[in-house]
Amino acid sequence: MMKILLSNDDGVHAPGIRALYLALKEVADVRVIAPDRNCSGASNSLTLHNPLRVRRLDNGFFSVNGTPTDCVHLGTNSPMAEDVDLVVSGINDSPNMGDDVLYSGTVAAAMEGRFMGLPSIAVSMGGRGHDYYDTAGRVVAEIVASMENDPLRLDTVLNINVPYTTYDKLKGTRVTKLGRRHRAETMVHDRDPFGSEIFWYGPIGHHASDEPNTDFTAIHEGYVSITPLSLDMTAQRHTDTLTDWLEQQK
Amino acid sequence: MMKILLSNDDGVHAPGIRALYLALKEVADVRVIAPDRNCSGASNSLTLHNPLRVRRLDNGFFSVNGTPTDCVHLGTNSPMAEDVDLVVSGINDSPNMGDDVLYSGTVAAAMEGRFMGLPSIAVSMGGRGHDYYDTAGRVVAEIVASMENDPLRLDTVLNINVPYTTYDKLKGTRVTKLGRRHRAETMVHDRDPFGSEIFWYGPIGHHASDEPNTDFTAIHEGYVSITPLSLDMTAQRHTDTLTDWLEQQK
Amino acid sequence: MMKILLSNDDGVHAPGIRALYLALKEVADVRVIAPDRNCSGASNSLTLHNPLRVRRLDNGFFSVNGTPTDCVHLGTNSPMAEDVDLVVSGINDSPNMGDDVLYSGTVAAAMEGRFMGLPSIAVSMGGRGHDYYDTAGRVVAEIVASMENDPLRLDTVLNINVPYTTYDKLKGTRVTKLGRRHRAETMVHDRDPFGSEIFWYGPIGHHASDEPNTDFTAIHEGYVSITPLSLDMTAQRHTDTLTDWLEQQK
Amino acid sequence: MMKILLSNDDGVHAPGIRALYLALKEVADVRVIAPDRNCSGASNSLTLHNPLRVRRLDNGFFSVNGTPTDCVHLGTNSPMAEDVDLVVSGINDSPNMGDDVLYSGTVAAAMEGRFMGLPSIAVSMGGRGHDYYDTAGRVVAEIVASMENDPLRLDTVLNINVPYTTYDKLKGTRVTKLGRRHRAETMVHDRDPFGSEIFWYGPIGHHASDEPNTDFTAIHEGYVSITPLSLDMTAQRHTDTLTDWLEQQK
Repeated sequence: MMKILLSNDDGVHAPGIRALYLALKEVADVRVIAPDRNCSGASNSLTLHNPLRVRRLDNGFFSVNGTPTDCVHLGTNSPMAEDVDLVVSGINDSPNMGDDVLYSGTVAAAMEGRFMGLPSIAVSMGGRGHDYYDTAGRVVAEIVASMENDPLRLDTVLNINVPYTTYDKLKGTRVTKLGRRHRAETMVHDRDPFGSEIFWYGPIGHHASDEPNTDFTAIHEGYVSITPLSLDMTAQRHTDTLTDWLEQQK
Repeated sequence: MMKILLSNDDGVHAPGIRALYLALKEVADVRVIAPDRNCSGASNSLTLHNPLRVRRLDNGFFSVNGTPTDCVHLGTNSPMAEDVDLVVSGINDSPNMGDDVLYSGTVAAAMEGRFMGLPSIAVSMGGRGHDYYDTAGRVVAEIVASMENDPLRLDTVLNINVPYTTYDKLKGTRVTKLGRRHRAETMVHDRDPFGSEIFWYGPIGHHASDEPNTDFTAIHEGYVSITPLSLDMTAQRHTDTLTDWLEQQK
Repeated sequence: MMKILLSNDDGVHAPGIRALYLALKEVADVRVIAPDRNCSGASNSLTLHNPLRVRRLDNGFFSVNGTPTDCVHLGTNSPMAEDVDLVVSGINDSPNMGDDVLYSGTVAAAMEGRFMGLPSIAVSMGGRGHDYYDTAGRVVAEIVASMENDPLRLDTVLNINVPYTTYDKLKGTRVTKLGRRHRAETMVHDRDPFGSEIFWYGPIGHHASDEPNTDFTAIHEGYVSITPLSLDMTAQRHTDTLTDWLEQQK
Repeated sequence: MMKILLSNDDGVHAPGIRALYLALKEVADVRVIAPDRNCSGASNSLTLHNPLRVRRLDNGFFSVNGTPTDCVHLGTNSPMAEDVDLVVSGINDSPNMGDDVLYSGTVAAAMEGRFMGLPSIAVSMGGRGHDYYDTAGRVVAEIVASMENDPLRLDTVLNINVPYTTYDKLKGTRVTKLGRRHRAETMVHDRDPFGSEIFWYGPIGHHASDEPNTDFTAIHEGYVSITPLSLDMTAQRHTDTLTDWLEQQK
């Protein structure tokens, strides 16, 4: 049986990770290591200045006072690490599409698995809510079973978003690219009850792209979206232009 | 004069940001918004669950109880935002090369500028220490002056690492790609003074790549390294293989 | 049936609060509101600069991203407050005797109940460990049952420490005063794995007092210790001396 | 010259601690160790689960990522401790009177000095604002000078509140007892910009006591209030009643 390390960014007590655990333990050995608190927006952040502490909960899940990346690092490159064949992260309670992926702790946990040389999957609901984790759990369990039979040897993270609906209403699966969002609304300026100025992030922007092959479009049309992600952020396409520009400045 | 928003991840009190401020204010209007604490390893993390508070220090810098990304967002998309022509982040007190960029708060601050549609630069010392911020400050001031005369219209972040030496010893400038590091050493398992188990990250791995055009090689050979970074993480090169694999699973 | 608000400082997942819940629900309606993380050493601290968030766990306990004082305040003076007859805090996994009480989050939770005008009890194990929560649970359940029959109308917090042994080995109960500890050992100076200087608190001091009527002596001799605590910290006994001294300075 | 350890809870960058530093350095050697962030409401909390880090700022003040109690402990019982004759904490930007003292980080810093066996003073403005720190600074400098000439050998903390006015308008000094406040307003229930439920503390209650010898009355009538505080919280006056009650339960 495959050995899966499961994490998330909504925290070890979130319903999404429990639903995914239940779906995956039918097809794999699953070990859960996840943050003790909701870490939405954690991105790939690391806890470098404080030590990490691990607590084993009654249900056997490990709870960590750290980030999603910390959890996967603990599970793959620490004295508490065990053999892992696959890293899975999720189910996030809302989409991680387009520009979201850079800020997402869910995606970051999967990236950390990839850095450790492991196949990795991030899973999010295509709509916000807690009603259809079963759908996403079943989709992922199928992909994992396929990977066991026919390994996918790509140096990539699979970023999966699943339509917010029942399994039988899914239209199919599309390989997509990341779309774009409009910029977020301006931050909210407010005062706390003591009269001090505070700022909050506002709601995220709507998607900006109508291209047919994006993750936004796939979800909008009822398809599971799978986007392969690269960990190499070099913008190769700009190398020549940049080199020329630098020459001209001399 | 160009209007620059300057941030970093070592915190508003770090010597690197002060050195960069002094270098840039000779060529531009500079506004500093930076974290109140050292945020190394913050990546693109956002403070979503708590409000942000801003304090103006005696030297005019703005100090924020948040991450590098929060600071740039405050400076570009909030009621305290002003006109910005360029976002600069740094000088980080150690390198941000290869896989580091995904974890780096310095690079994340520049990425946030790019998301807001602005030219953006991240600056780090190619070696750890506080002795040669002047070198990096001068290198960046020159690039900024060039950009004012001859704008570089690319949808990219310039990730600059500067050799840890005096300005006159620099060999030149190279446009590079991100190298790779060996994986970090395993986490350190320890006990706190009360006997409880704790884990710390260990030292980062050494660079793994000997290719001539990486950031590691440029710094090693005494050149300023400039890597153009893409914000689109889609792994286009894997799209066909992934599509084929999915077909075969049906 | 009495309505009890139960909290602690070891956190909502600690075995001590579960043992106390099980013991008390035999004699009372018990509502649990406790910190989501271990808050040892929290004293009476309040979360003033960030908002509090409450999550209802599967077992019906409420988990709060705050301090013991925050939890009791939420349960007694907020829109989520319900009727409360008694506030109980514990069972702490180690003693809260002598000077400990000023730093203790366990005691602070009970003090907050007292500030809200309610009878309040703090409960701690007289020795460190998880083996004899049953003993403490039974002791407290008996006191609570007595209070229901014969209310104790005192403006005080009962600070209870229970010997770390089986119930049948208890020698009895003593009303005590707070003893004194020797000062803590000097803080530990260390370096983190990256070479930066850090300081940790060292082990707490041993008790310094051999007086017969202190909490330390009671526990040492096998008795349950009950110390009534005052919330008024005015040192009335020093008022005259201080007044005289001030007169002389004119 | 006396050696003073100065701390506060508003943080090392607050104007109150700088005003007090300027006033005290005329009459004493002053070393400043204070929190890097505003710690209002910190009470006597200790940072037990994470290590402390100390940074020396340009002005010579030490900045610590911890609580007021941590700062005084570092300055008196750690490898960075030096000789100290007196611990002073403040100037707090608002009153610490009556029940406030249990929650106050300003008072806690002074208490920690007393635990270390040192004379200790906490200083707060009797009204909220930044206009009259000079008044409080001068009052404290005078008391410190008096203590140097004529030591006050009492096992107590002096909790000083200074009227929010100019020095020449002060009516005199009174030795007071702690008054009482009405309970705080109920907590504020709100939603963050993402729709999640949050709770904030509301404004503190007004003072409840009209007795002539309280701190509230002294400040109200224009007098400097000095309340001697005890670190022993045993409610001696309740010992007999509690003992009788326990007897009756047998």
